[in-house]
Parts: sequence; structure tokens; C-alpha cells
Amino acid sequence: MSFNTFGRVFRFSTWGESHGPAIGAVVDGCPPGLPISEADIQPFLDKRKPGTSKFTTQRREPDEVRILSGVFEGRTTGTPISLMIENTDQRSKDYSDVAKAYRPGHADYAYDAKYGFRDYRGGGRSSARETASRVAAGAVARLVIPDVDIFAYVSEIGGDAIDYARFDASEIDNNPFFCPDPEAAKRWEQLVDGARKDGSSLGAVVECVASGVPAGWGAPLYAKLDSELAAAMMSINAVKGVEIGDGFAAARLRGEDNADPMRPGADGPEFLANHAGGIAGGISTGQPVKLRVAFKPTSSILIPVETVTREGEASDIITRGRHDPCVGIRGVPVVEAMMALVLADQKLLHRAQCGGD
Amino acid sequence: MSFNTFGRVFRFSTWGESHGPAIGAVVDGCPPGLPISEADIQPFLDKRKPGTSKFTTQRREPDEVRILSGVFEGRTTGTPISLMIENTDQRSKDYSDVAKAYRPGHADYAYDAKYGFRDYRGGGRSSARETASRVAAGAVARLVIPDVDIFAYVSEIGGDAIDYARFDASEIDNNPFFCPDPEAAKRWEQLVDGARKDGSSLGAVVECVASGVPAGWGAPLYAKLDSELAAAMMSINAVKGVEIGDGFAAARLRGEDNADPMRPGADGPEFLANHAGGIAGGISTGQPVKLRVAFKPTSSILIPVETVTREGEASDIITRGRHDPCVGIRGVPVVEAMMALVLADQKLLHRAQCGGD
Amino acid sequence: MSFNTFGRVFRFSTWGESHGPAIGAVVDGCPPGLPISEADIQPFLDKRKPGTSKFTTQRREPDEVRILSGVFEGRTTGTPISLMIENTDQRSKDYSDVAKAYRPGHADYAYDAKYGFRDYRGGGRSSARETASRVAAGAVARLVIPDVDIFAYVSEIGGDAIDYARFDASEIDNNPFFCPDPEAAKRWEQLVDGARKDGSSLGAVVECVASGVPAGWGAPLYAKLDSELAAAMMSINAVKGVEIGDGFAAARLRGEDNADPMRPGADGPEFLANHAGGIAGGISTGQPVKLRVAFKPTSSILIPVETVTREGEASDIITRGRHDPCVGIRGVPVVEAMMALVLADQKLLHRAQCGGD
Amino acid sequence: MSFNTFGRVFRFSTWGESHGPAIGAVVDGCPPGLPISEADIQPFLDKRKPGTSKFTTQRREPDEVRILSGVFEGRTTGTPISLMIENTDQRSKDYSDVAKAYRPGHADYAYDAKYGFRDYRGGGRSSARETASRVAAGAVARLVIPDVDIFAYVSEIGGDAIDYARFDASEIDNNPFFCPDPEAAKRWEQLVDGARKDGSSLGAVVECVASGVPAGWGAPLYAKLDSELAAAMMSINAVKGVEIGDGFAAARLRGEDNADPMRPGADGPEFLANHAGGIAGGISTGQPVKLRVAFKPTSSILIPVETVTREGEASDIITRGRHDPCVGIRGVPVVEAMMALVLADQKLLHRAQCGGD
Repeated sequence: MSFNTFGRVFRFSTWGESHGPAIGAVVDGCPPGLPISEADIQPFLDKRKPGTSKFTTQRREPDEVRILSGVFEGRTTGTPISLMIENTDQRSKDYSDVAKAYRPGHADYAYDAKYGFRDYRGGGRSSARETASRVAAGAVARLVIPDVDIFAYVSEIGGDAIDYARFDASEIDNNPFFCPDPEAAKRWEQLVDGARKDGSSLGAVVECVASGVPAGWGAPLYAKLDSELAAAMMSINAVKGVEIGDGFAAARLRGEDNADPMRPGADGPEFLANHAGGIAGGISTGQPVKLRVAFKPTSSILIPVETVTREGEASDIITRGRHDPCVGIRGVPVVEAMMALVLADQKLLHRAQCGGD
Repeated sequence: MSFNTFGRVFRFSTWGESHGPAIGAVVDGCPPGLPISEADIQPFLDKRKPGTSKFTTQRREPDEVRILSGVFEGRTTGTPISLMIENTDQRSKDYSDVAKAYRPGHADYAYDAKYGFRDYRGGGRSSARETASRVAAGAVARLVIPDVDIFAYVSEIGGDAIDYARFDASEIDNNPFFCPDPEAAKRWEQLVDGARKDGSSLGAVVECVASGVPAGWGAPLYAKLDSELAAAMMSINAVKGVEIGDGFAAARLRGEDNADPMRPGADGPEFLANHAGGIAGGISTGQPVKLRVAFKPTSSILIPVETVTREGEASDIITRGRHDPCVGIRGVPVVEAMMALVLADQKLLHRAQCGGD
Repeated sequence: MSFNTFGRVFRFSTWGESHGPAIGAVVDGCPPGLPISEADIQPFLDKRKPGTSKFTTQRREPDEVRILSGVFEGRTTGTPISLMIENTDQRSKDYSDVAKAYRPGHADYAYDAKYGFRDYRGGGRSSARETASRVAAGAVARLVIPDVDIFAYVSEIGGDAIDYARFDASEIDNNPFFCPDPEAAKRWEQLVDGARKDGSSLGAVVECVASGVPAGWGAPLYAKLDSELAAAMMSINAVKGVEIGDGFAAARLRGEDNADPMRPGADGPEFLANHAGGIAGGISTGQPVKLRVAFKPTSSILIPVETVTREGEASDIITRGRHDPCVGIRGVPVVEAMMALVLADQKLLHRAQCGGD
Repeated sequence: MSFNTFGRVFRFSTWGESHGPAIGAVVDGCPPGLPISEADIQPFLDKRKPGTSKFTTQRREPDEVRILSGVFEGRTTGTPISLMIENTDQRSKDYSDVAKAYRPGHADYAYDAKYGFRDYRGGGRSSARETASRVAAGAVARLVIPDVDIFAYVSEIGGDAIDYARFDASEIDNNPFFCPDPEAAKRWEQLVDGARKDGSSLGAVVECVASGVPAGWGAPLYAKLDSELAAAMMSINAVKGVEIGDGFAAARLRGEDNADPMRPGADGPEFLANHAGGIAGGISTGQPVKLRVAFKPTSSILIPVETVTREGEASDIITRGRHDPCVGIRGVPVVEAMMALVLADQKLLHRAQCGGD
């Protein structure tokens, strides 16, 4: 069964294919009375928008969002908020290659195996274009959690990591890579451009931090905050791994080194470390919620890969078109959006069970 | 809100605390007519059972499961299957330390922050004891997917990894670590025993493989197979990271190296690699589904850690009791169970939408 | 929490207000490969369309549906089907009366009490206009259950019932009341027109029959077929009662009179009566599924009713505008749509658990 | 698919068959800190308990509830509350008749058609015995809504209705029929006893009132308060109809007579009538929530009814055993429980979206 809805009480559904007339999201369960307009959503879409540098796809979509419902006199009414983004740059290209043969790494074969049928134009529903709908929904989610500050950045491309000693959050928006380390950003220009010229692609790691999350959000056991975040991140195209806090590195620590000791603080316990990434037992601890997400290299490359056709014949395929040489870069606003969507949902779930505002 | 149910159509709910009279699971949506008895479930519980070696907790629970409903004349009826495991070894120990102060790394503080209140005996609901219910439910799930073979093993403890060149699946059950590399297993004896004697603990990495999954399972976009698996694994106590296929390593590959080329095979495409872990676009490809899970070191250690009391006073805490020096070891049957539960659910979801048996 | 989604695996969500730019539905979980175009949906919308006779509201909306996603080369792809209907006849009228005072029988006061705020233009989200989205979604549902024949009709207006001895299904579309009894239809012309001229309104009873439903659909216990139908019908604006089969009349029968005896038939048991309305234990029996729905009289009337303003002042209100004198009439296609939506969902649920097809 | 869970955030699942070892419910999402013990639940079970008069089944079950989880030191912890009731009076009788032939009006044929298989002992999962689990869960729900007063009563048996002029709520518990009219109660003794002696059975109408529900509960559109109530009531065994407020009678009123006028009151608007049953637009208005439920006559009767065997042979069947001559009577505490369960859920949903305590 196709489940295109995410969330428990603050929920969003997305629809649309990369080459249909439009894509969109419906946000359900948003609290009433929140001031909102397209201007609150557009900046996040602009951040994700293709065609802003040579390091991202040259497809050009204005990605202008329209609010079709759920808002009256500039405020949310508590009813579903329908968001629509028209697809404008559907270049009438030739998709016969993709229609005939399966692109390795893409969902082509899996969709055919499942549905017996697929919209092959630009990846159809499995296109990363769908993530624009998430980003729009995420902008609404941020309004629900005004005290939470969320930011993400790329910490590694093609195996070349930032130096945390040079970490400067104010640098993130100063380069086309959402990179907090200006020297790494410089290196990545060559790295990514080189991959692009080779017709190849690179993977990346995105990190995301949410501060201002109070202790107590999370719905044990099967909607734990970390479980929901893992589901949210793993649903993003090209994501193959998720770590909360130290993640796999924690598996290499001894218990005493992995502990996050506490001491009395002004407003409750003060933590002396954050190996846990702000979550214990599936519930937020009041520390910043931190996670890392692995993006595989873009599967669309100009280097021929062995494959088979729908008819079962051997073939080589190269994926022409306007592709991101490193899809993880544009994953940054998507990761932020999913973080916001999960946290908004968990905030409302928490007050459902435990009350409070 | 507390969500103690997992799954979309094949669903299970668990209940129970480590020191209450019993724990249990209710499995809902199981197909009718499957032959089943306690004997189909007990071996999986025995595999997870504490007290089987000095490398796991010395708590002794027979963990005998009873089927209370949903089965008639040895077959599932299609109605809820209620499974109950009585708690028998609830040693009347002194929990006043835990009641008073928060154990770092545990859910103590988070539960108090959320609920204003917690059952502090042995971790209460946040105890790993709950995972016995999952293992029982997972045994039912396996009956739904008889053609799928699932096995997990420990690939790394405390940073000491197996050598894949020595990988031998038949070794997994020959040592107390579920280790497929007999030499690593030997090293781990000392490693784990040393940590235990130090009153410390170690993390671990568990890997799981499901073969026999046909192409086409997975419910894009927000119940993608990998997204569901990530949620399932991250809901297990002490898990901090999940990778599908190559996971974070994929982020360091170039596109042409990460591709899983295909060529014509006897029964549809044959894949020449499996970097993707058997999932593309959230749908199974017919290759083995592979994932890795990071377990942090057990938080209960005998080495004092700085903490605060419920009243906000500074304190040191050591967690006496019968704890696993490496909780990841007993995570193996739990990871397998969650894999089975997700796959059973996805199988039924697939046939809901796409038909077939 | 606002739940604007209905269904378990074949699910639809609706969005939109009567006076926003558009309304719509997203249908999720539709099986792939079904031939579909706007032409399959439009006739159902036309049936519900306002302004077709003097017995329905004079608001004129073309109610043209557009398919925005989920369809490729004329067939469903298995991905979400986004349906949009633009609002065109949003007469720029004066809503200051409604903004200031609560219309008794309407959701005005309840929405304000819940949300502290409401879109008062034409009822906003609580307007019966939303039901156009359901009718569109219902047209898709019908494609999922091609062997099921669904039809509804009005059996009673303002207490004046049809004579079942004159029941003629072919008459239903021959009069503006969806009335299967031509003599009743004639009487109703005067009745409804009289109410309209008085500025008053009338209630109605709608009956719906689905034949061709095989035995075995229904998901006991809390998604029983009758329970789902009751929820579906009671979610329609102005509905105050639902009966399955004989409904309240069954409460006046003795056991032996209410029994539906069976005898051997060509294809399994043949029933000699259908008091149960085709459902036993929440599961279809193979007989026609039958239900009755009570619509209250339209709350918007030109006769002044005592009320209070938002500021708590006493006031009288009359609801000017273009209203249906008997909202039950246009409820007919909505009841049919909800029947189709429930049955499509239950069909897929059934095959999820029990296989087949 | 079998859905044995009800509710959105305050949720309960039931399990168990009439002739298995036990039945039970798991209540999930209950707010923490509520004082609770078995003594809070038992009185409601006692009210429903069989064998208390000759007008109900002579099956004798003590129906003693045990709390197995979710409670610590006499208070709810916010984790799942597992409730178990052992089956003790499973008379080892001969079910070969029921195994062989389908009892008309029962779920026998439908279960076989769906699952190919059924637990025929005493109705198995479709037995009204399951409702004991609901009553237990409902007792927990009442703790969540302490300011709401819920009571139900029988208003009609076998077509013989109470006289509302003699309505006296204090009489409800003074007779075996939960009848608020002592004269009707007297008549019903003969009526019900007569049916019992004839081996026949009678239907009934149960009415339920919840006062103290504040304005604003209800989750439009597809979890409207009335829609949820309709689903809840229609899921009870033998229920064939549900009315909110005036229900079908409203369909016979003119708009001005069905209006519930308002005037200024001490605490917000005061309503001058309650045709709507306390719900408008799916949201509570602050008036008492009122509904009516139709129970068909018990299908188990001693009068032979024509039927078929599993093998398709013609047969007559009479249902021996200890049955309620009027199952609606013992439906009273079940209707109350479902009302409580829906209201508790809607309270928590409301505060999820709109905040407040």
C-alpha cells in the first residue's frame, strides 16, 4: 500500500510527479491562529531550489508555492493547509532510454516490479523533486515550534570532511555547499566540479541540529523521537544511513566515555556531554537534538553502467539530463524540513498526553 | 502520546514493565490458517534469554510465552494473537538509588521530564526487557514470510570488527556473541570479560540479512521499506545508528562505484553488486535486504558517573545490578525480530495494493 | 486534532474551504494500472453539482475536476492521485452577519469554541461544498471495485416517504430528487418548493444499496464494515443518523423474524431475507449492503432564529444566500461516494490479510 | 485486515475469544499520574456481568480484571495499561452443531467466508464477551474525563418504549433493565420473560447522555465527534443503528423547528433546545452529547431457523446455550464505555491541536 502521509497528529501528505502539472503537500492538524503567508514558506523553497550554482542541477524551477486552503486573514484556521507548486520546466526531452532500460541505483526496476508500470519521466514519483513538497510542509512545521532553532549543513563530500575546529555556523550560507568550514568549501568546489566534469557523482554527509527542544518530547516505544527521526530521514531520496548523536562511533566507546554526565544547573540538570544527541529512551533530554544523514552519490551519471531492458536484454545506460553531481547538498533544507516536521508532531503528541501548552 | 503499536496492517503492540507481573504483545492482522504453537515462538525467546553466559546479564527469566488468543486448533484464526510472558525473577532489590538520582544514558531523566513520574524499578517500561515481547511477535511474523530467511550477527564489539574473509554463518550460533568469525569470537571473550570486570561496558554493531524477499515490497514514500526498517531498528533500546546496504560508506563512493549493475539472469535481472542493501526507491529489488545497527555501550555501569538527583542535588551514581556488559549481543534476536515484523507488514501492504498472494 | 483523512489502506484526504481558490482530494493507495481520466470522475460531480434545479442551491459551480498526479498514460500508477476543483462562483457577498453572530444548527459556534477563530465565508471548511472532493475521490474508488454496483436515492423528504410498492430504480435519475417513486417525486415538488418559498427547509432520508459485494469484506472488530460505513456517513454534513439493514426497526422485531434464513444456492448459501443489510459480525455476507442515512433540514433558513453574537449579545439571525431547501437531495451522490470509498478500502484490507486477487 | 484497535491518541486494543483462557485490553496513551486500581474498573464490569438476573444469560463469569502494566504506586505512568480478564465458565459443551452449520444472524458464515476458518466455540472472537474488554478500557477512559458524566439506559424493548414523562435517572439501577421508567420496567419483566420462555429474543434501544463535555471537542472532518461515536457504537455486537440527537426524527422536522436557538447565558451561549445532540459540524457545543443505539434481537434463539451447513446442505438450527433474551440490556455499560473512550480520545486530540489542559 502506498503511504504518502507522515506524522501522527501533525501530519502531512505529499503528491505529485516531477513531470506532472504540479506537486504539493497537504498539512493536517496544524494548530489554529498561527500567522502565515507564502512569504513564510518561499525562502525555504528558494534554499532548496535547483539551478542556483553549477554544483546543482541546471533544471530551473521557480518553485513558487501557493497556499490553497487552511489560512484565513493571514492565520492558520486549524483546517488542512494545501500547498501547491507548479512544475514549469518540464523540458520535452526524450525519455525513451529510461523507459526502456533500468537505471542502476534508481527506483526504475523496483517500481516496475511493484506496480508493473511506472511514470518514467524524470523519475516520476521517485524523483527528488518531491522533496520540495516536504520543504514547504516543513516551513509550516517551523511555525508550530517557534522556540526551536534548526539548522543543517554538509559535513563531508566524497569522503572529504570538514574540520570541526573551523566550524562556523555563519559560513553555512556563504557557499554553495552549506558548508560551515570555509576551507572545506573551497576544496569542495574543485571536488564537485571535477566529478561533474567526469560525468560522475559524489556522496555526502549532512548533519542537523535542533536546539531549544524541551525535555519530554518523544512517544515511546514505537514513535520514539529517534525512531521517528530515523524514519523521516531514511524516507528522503538517496539516504542510506542515519545516526543519532554519536551514532556508530558510540558503538566504539566504553560506557563511561559514552555517558552524558549531569550536574545541577540553573534550569534543571546541566549535561556535560551530548553523545546521545539529545535523546534518551526515545525522549528529548533538553539538549540539542543532533543527527547525521548519509547521502549516496547521485545515481544519474554519464558513465555507462551495465543494465537490462524491460524486455530483459543486456544494455548499457548513461543518464543524460540535468542532474546534481552531489544530491546531498540540496538535501540540507530537506533534512531541516523533516526535523521540523517530526518535532512539531512530537510537540503536539506530548501535549495530547501530558497537557500543557 | 504513547504509541506502543508498530506496523500498518500486520501490527503488534507491546505492554509491560520489567518489574510488573508480566509483559506481552498483541499481534493484529495476522493472516488466518497459519499453523502455530508456543513451540514456534519459544526458540527465539530462548536465543534472547538472559543468563545464558557470563557475557550477558545474570538475571534469570525462563521467558516462557503463552498464547492467550487468536489460535484455534493449532492455527491462526485471523484475530489478535495475545502473547504473554510472566516476569519471574523480580529480585526484591533496593531501587532507592535509581528512584532518587538519574542514571546518565538511561531514560530516567527524560521519563521524569515527560511524565512527571516513572516506574523506576529496573528501568520500567524503558527496560530492554520489553524486547522479549518483540521477539515473540517477530516469531509470529516469520510465519507470514516463510520464504524469507533472516539472520543477524554481531560484526563488531568495542571497535573490534570481524574479518569478513573469515565470515562463516554456521559459526554464529557456536559462540555466545552471535559472531560469524571464530577468531573474533575468541578475542571478544577477553574483551567483554575485561569490560565486565572493570564494571564498564562496550558497544557493538549488529548486521542483519534477509534473503528471499521478492522485488516489489515497500510502500513509498513515507512507509518505504528502508524508512520502516530504520524506524524499527531505532526503536530498539540502545540503538543509535542504522545503515541500509553500504550506509555511510556509500557517501564516500563515486556514483559509478556505488552503482549496482544488472545483467540478464535466469529469473529477471541479476545484480552484480549490492551496495544498496536490496532496496531502491524504498522498494525491495529482490537482492538480500541488508542493514547494520549500532548499539551504544550499556549505560548501566559500575563506574561512578556524575549526575543529579530528582531534587536537583549533585550526586554520583553507579548502577548495581545484573547488567549486560554489551547489550548489543542480545540485540541480535531483537534485530531479527524487527526485520521480520517489518517485512511481514510490507508483504501484506504490497498485496493490499497490488494483489497477489 | 484535525483528521482530514479517511480510510486504512485505500485512503483519501480532502482540503479546502468553500470560498478559497479551490478544494481537492488526494487519493492514496490506489492500485496501479486502472484506466482513468477526468471523464470517469466528472459525471459524479455533475450529479452533485449545485444549480441544476430550483430545488437545490442556485450557487453555480462548474465543478470541473483536474487530475494533477498519480496517472500516467491514462492509467493509475499506484502513487497519490491529486484531484483539484477550482471555486469559481465565490460571489463577493457580505458575510458580516455570519462573522458576527452564530447561526444555530451550523458549526459556527463550535468552530469558534474549538479554534478561537474561523473562516466564516460560506461556512468555510464546514461547508457542504467539501463533499465535492469526496464525490471525486469516490469516483476513483469505484474503479477499484468494478464488480460492485452502488446506487442511492431519497426515500423520504420532510416525513413524506416513498411507496416501496412503486419503487423503480430507473426513475431515480428522472426527477430532481433522486426519487425512485414517481408519485412521491411529484408530491415533493410542491413540498420542497413550498419550504423554499417559506424560507424554511426540510430533512430527508437517503438509502443506499451496494450489490456485488462478495462475502468476506470487513475488518473486525474496530474497522467492521458497518462501523466504517457508520463513520463515513456520519461524517457527511447534516447527517444525524445511520441504519444498517433494518436498523431501528430491527430493535422492534423478535429474533425469529429478524433472522435471515439461508438455504443452499447455486453459488453458496442463498439468503431468504436481508434484515441485516448484508453485514454480519462486521463482515459482508454476499447479500446487498444496505443502509439508510438521516439528513436534518438545512440549517440555513430565512426564518429568524434567536442567537448570540461573538460578543455574547442577543441577536436574531436569518441566513441569506443560495441554499438548498433540502440538503439531503444533493447528499445522494455523497452517500454513494462514501459507500464506494469504504468498500474499496475494505476490499484492499481483505486481500492484505487473506490474499486473493 | 483485522483492526482491533480503536482511537487516535487515547487508544485501546482488545484481544481474546469467548472460550480461550482469557480476554483483555491494552490501553495506550493514557495520561500519566491518574490514580487507578482494579477497584476503579471492577464496578463497571460488574454492571455488565452476566448471570445477574433471569433476564440475562446464565453464563457465570466473575469477570475479575487484573492490571498487568502501566500503573505504579497506584498511578498511571503514561505507558500501556494491560487489562486481563480470565475466562472461567467455559462449560465443556458440544459445539458440533455450530461447527457444522451457520447460525443465521451470527457471524458464522461471514467469518468462514473471510478467513476460511473460525473458532466456533461460543462465537469465538465475534462473541459479545469481547465487550467486557471494552468496559474495562472504558473505566480507564472515564479517569481521563473526570468532569464528564456519562449514563445510558434502555428506552425501548421489543417496541415497548418508556414514557419520558416518567423519566427518573435514579431508577436506572433499580431494575434489571437499566430502565429509567419504573412502569416500563415492570412491563418489560413480562415481555422479556415471555420471549425467553418462547425461546425467542427481543431488540432494544439504548440511549446515552454525556454531560459536562465542553464546547470544542471533535476533529473535523473524518474524525468528527459524531462520526467517531457512530463508528464506536456500530462496532458493538448486535447494533444496527445510531442516532445523534434527534437522529431520524430530525429528518422529519422543518429547519426552524430543528434549530437549537441560543441566547446569552452566564458562561457563554445558552441553548434553548438540543435537537443536535450536543454536536455541530462534528464538534461539541457544550450541550449534553446525546445518542441512541438500536440493538437487534439476540440471534441465538431456540426457535429453529432454516440454514445451510459448511458442506452446503440444507439444515435447521436452534442455538442452545445460555443466551441473553435481549442483548441490548447488557449493552448499556458497553455503550457508556464506548462513549467514554471516544470522549477521552477527543479530549486529548483537542489539546494536541489547540493546547490547554
